[in-house]
Amino acid sequence: MCAGARSKGAACVGGATRSKRVPRAVREQQMLDAGVRAFARSGYQNASMDDIAELAGVSKPLVYLYLHSKEELFTACIRREAAALVTAVRAAVERDAPADRQLWSGLSGFFAHTAEHPDGWRLLHTQARTRGQPYALEVAAMRAEIVEFVKQLIGAAARERAGGAPRARGLADTEVSGLAHALVGAAESLADWAGDRKAGGPSAKEAAATLMNFAWAGLGNLLRGERWPPERTG
Amino acid sequence: MCAGARSKGAACVGGATRSKRVPRAVREQQMLDAGVRAFARSGYQNASMDDIAELAGVSKPLVYLYLHSKEELFTACIRREAAALVTAVRAAVERDAPADRQLWSGLSGFFAHTAEHPDGWRLLHTQARTRGQPYALEVAAMRAEIVEFVKQLIGAAARERAGGAPRARGLADTEVSGLAHALVGAAESLADWAGDRKAGGPSAKEAAATLMNFAWAGLGNLLRGERWPPERTG
Repeated sequence: MCAGARSKGAACVGGATRSKRVPRAVREQQMLDAGVRAFARSGYQNASMDDIAELAGVSKPLVYLYLHSKEELFTACIRREAAALVTAVRAAVERDAPADRQLWSGLSGFFAHTAEHPDGWRLLHTQARTRGQPYALEVAAMRAEIVEFVKQLIGAAARERAGGAPRARGLADTEVSGLAHALVGAAESLADWAGDRKAGGPSAKEAAATLMNFAWAGLGNLLRGERWPPERTG
Repeated sequence: MCAGARSKGAACVGGATRSKRVPRAVREQQMLDAGVRAFARSGYQNASMDDIAELAGVSKPLVYLYLHSKEELFTACIRREAAALVTAVRAAVERDAPADRQLWSGLSGFFAHTAEHPDGWRLLHTQARTRGQPYALEVAAMRAEIVEFVKQLIGAAARERAGGAPRARGLADTEVSGLAHALVGAAESLADWAGDRKAGGPSAKEAAATLMNFAWAGLGNLLRGERWPPERTG
């Protein structure tokens, strides 16, 4: 059945006729695309290497030849998606802008990327975190990088504010850390919510604006030394 | 080995000598305690019914007799922990207080409960969500209940504000929903962060105050019609 295809310089893999000339790097990306989709939608246990090979349009032995095992394929998928998300956020940030503008542009990039790559987001946020180490560690490292970035922006905002208003008080390190975790958690929750709503949901810009309205204004008050509650209520 | 124990009215289960008189309801709670701990720490796949029986101090057949299967035990653990969390939050809320005070008391209850029940929180937030249906649905239902509660508080705050300040504009339903999801996500992230830091981390009151400072002040600005950015930046 494959003889004819082979004689024209194409290989018969997984029942499909494909060019032999597809470079390994391209093939691997196709396998990762298939892996991300299958793991995100079916979970690690239920996603089979047969399904992944079929989705990628290659033979199962070729998947094993390139990526060795389901575990290594899963790890490679997580690494690729984590790196892509961090890269997208960093690329979106308007460097040298005021801190709030930097945060807004980073959030817009985050919501745009998660909306464009729902399977990647689901893989990172839902599937990878519970598979134990080393998978959870990969995601935790990515998340820590984003939290650190947000901490720096909050710190920068505090310094900008301190330059303009002598009444401003500093924020303790723990407080800045807590605020950064709150903001990242809020962004994750909004990304899930926007993803669930699909067509009727907010755009990336709207989600970013919602979070900025919510968080940045509160942060502004905090940096001015205005705290909740406005008066002691016990 | 068990004859002596039996003759004194005690049963020999799982090699341990225990009173026969422990009521089924109490025994089941012990099994659920063990299940929550094992599933939270090892994950569903790695937690074995042998370990759970040993942790509960009963025989494995008794676990199967009472809870039928690992799946049903897992479901029962999730249901109990979800109900306990929602009950704790509802009980903590100061009814008839202003909306911000209600939110603060609810958040304090949330952080106190998750700090006191780290395994339960881990089970709900990390383990249950990725096991697919019906487990994820149980947790999603609990989360939806909490989001709905927060939406009502934001709506009540908007109405309170509208009563006092004629300039206040209403918030669209989608916006209230987005804000509620952001706040719940921020609380989840802070609970994880506080749990990871353990002894050095913030207390429940401090975590609640961080989130109130962050979110409520922003919400207050939003309800006054003050949005980010303060002036159009394109």
